[in-house]
Amino acid sequence: MMTQEEKTMKSERIYEGKVINLRVDTVELPERKYSKREIVEHSGAVGIIALTEKEEMIFVKQYRKSVEEVLLEIPAGRIEADEEPEMTAKRELEEETGYIANKLTKITEYYTSPGFSNEILHIYFAEGLSAGVAIPDEDEYIEVTYLYIDEAIKKITKGEIKDSKTINAILLYKTMIEGKK
Amino acid sequence: MMTQEEKTMKSERIYEGKVINLRVDTVELPERKYSKREIVEHSGAVGIIALTEKEEMIFVKQYRKSVEEVLLEIPAGRIEADEEPEMTAKRELEEETGYIANKLTKITEYYTSPGFSNEILHIYFAEGLSAGVAIPDEDEYIEVTYLYIDEAIKKITKGEIKDSKTINAILLYKTMIEGKK
Repeated sequence: MMTQEEKTMKSERIYEGKVINLRVDTVELPERKYSKREIVEHSGAVGIIALTEKEEMIFVKQYRKSVEEVLLEIPAGRIEADEEPEMTAKRELEEETGYIANKLTKITEYYTSPGFSNEILHIYFAEGLSAGVAIPDEDEYIEVTYLYIDEAIKKITKGEIKDSKTINAILLYKTMIEGKK
Repeated sequence: MMTQEEKTMKSERIYEGKVINLRVDTVELPERKYSKREIVEHSGAVGIIALTEKEEMIFVKQYRKSVEEVLLEIPAGRIEADEEPEMTAKRELEEETGYIANKLTKITEYYTSPGFSNEILHIYFAEGLSAGVAIPDEDEYIEVTYLYIDEAIKKITKGEIKDSKTINAILLYKTMIEGKK
């Protein structure tokens, strides 16, 4: 069967929050059928692949309430109103790790959970780092840590890195490096 | 600063839906500070890497209302109540593509968006496929298509495959194959 655009017949706003909003759209399908689509609105986020002079990748450890677990992730954060994604990448890298990037290059962007959310994730590669002091948000408790890329890939294949954007960014970065060889 | 578990002081249920629920937790931070965590509850999902006899990978094209776009994805779906993820993989592959898998092997599991959701995604590798008839859900309009793995990786690096689980699953599958060589 062919794919089918879905016209919005009704849109109900359920919640407007700090990080997300929730709406429920009633959509029209072929043959006058209708369905509901629950949609989590998100302003988008960035994730940053940042390598030190020693070619170590910078990670952050952070407790994630949603899964009640400390996760090992690349530095990342939410795009604030009217912010260019590149500025978010620069800002979040500094806030979470203290490092200031001299140059940021966009690697890719993709949808994190298109089944129920419009969140776009932008992945950047940060170069020319200079170390500084981290200034996390008031409600963030973050620990900075380092791994070589081969160590990180081992942790991915063992299931020890459990965060989607981190897996994605590292494997994509590796694929692109190898593509250039 | 060290990572910090967050004790729930209050939990407010905002919405209970078909695919997701939404709750807002008030959590306690150090020094008697408090914050809100918006959490999208999801029952988890599976994605399936399935190769035909000709070593073509099976994809589905589907309109995603959240992003108002047709996306190229691996077959996937939501875990229903009390369902084992492996059963979900078998069921969704058949519903969306018609293929029945003789053997399913779990590759990995990870969190899709731990910043605001508890969704876990389980990735399976499907072998021994026999073709049958697709039986999609009443509100699903799906088109089956095929790509060789190298074509799929090219589409990922060009940004033409935009779905996180699809990027993740393909790059991880490739990394694991190469690890075995």
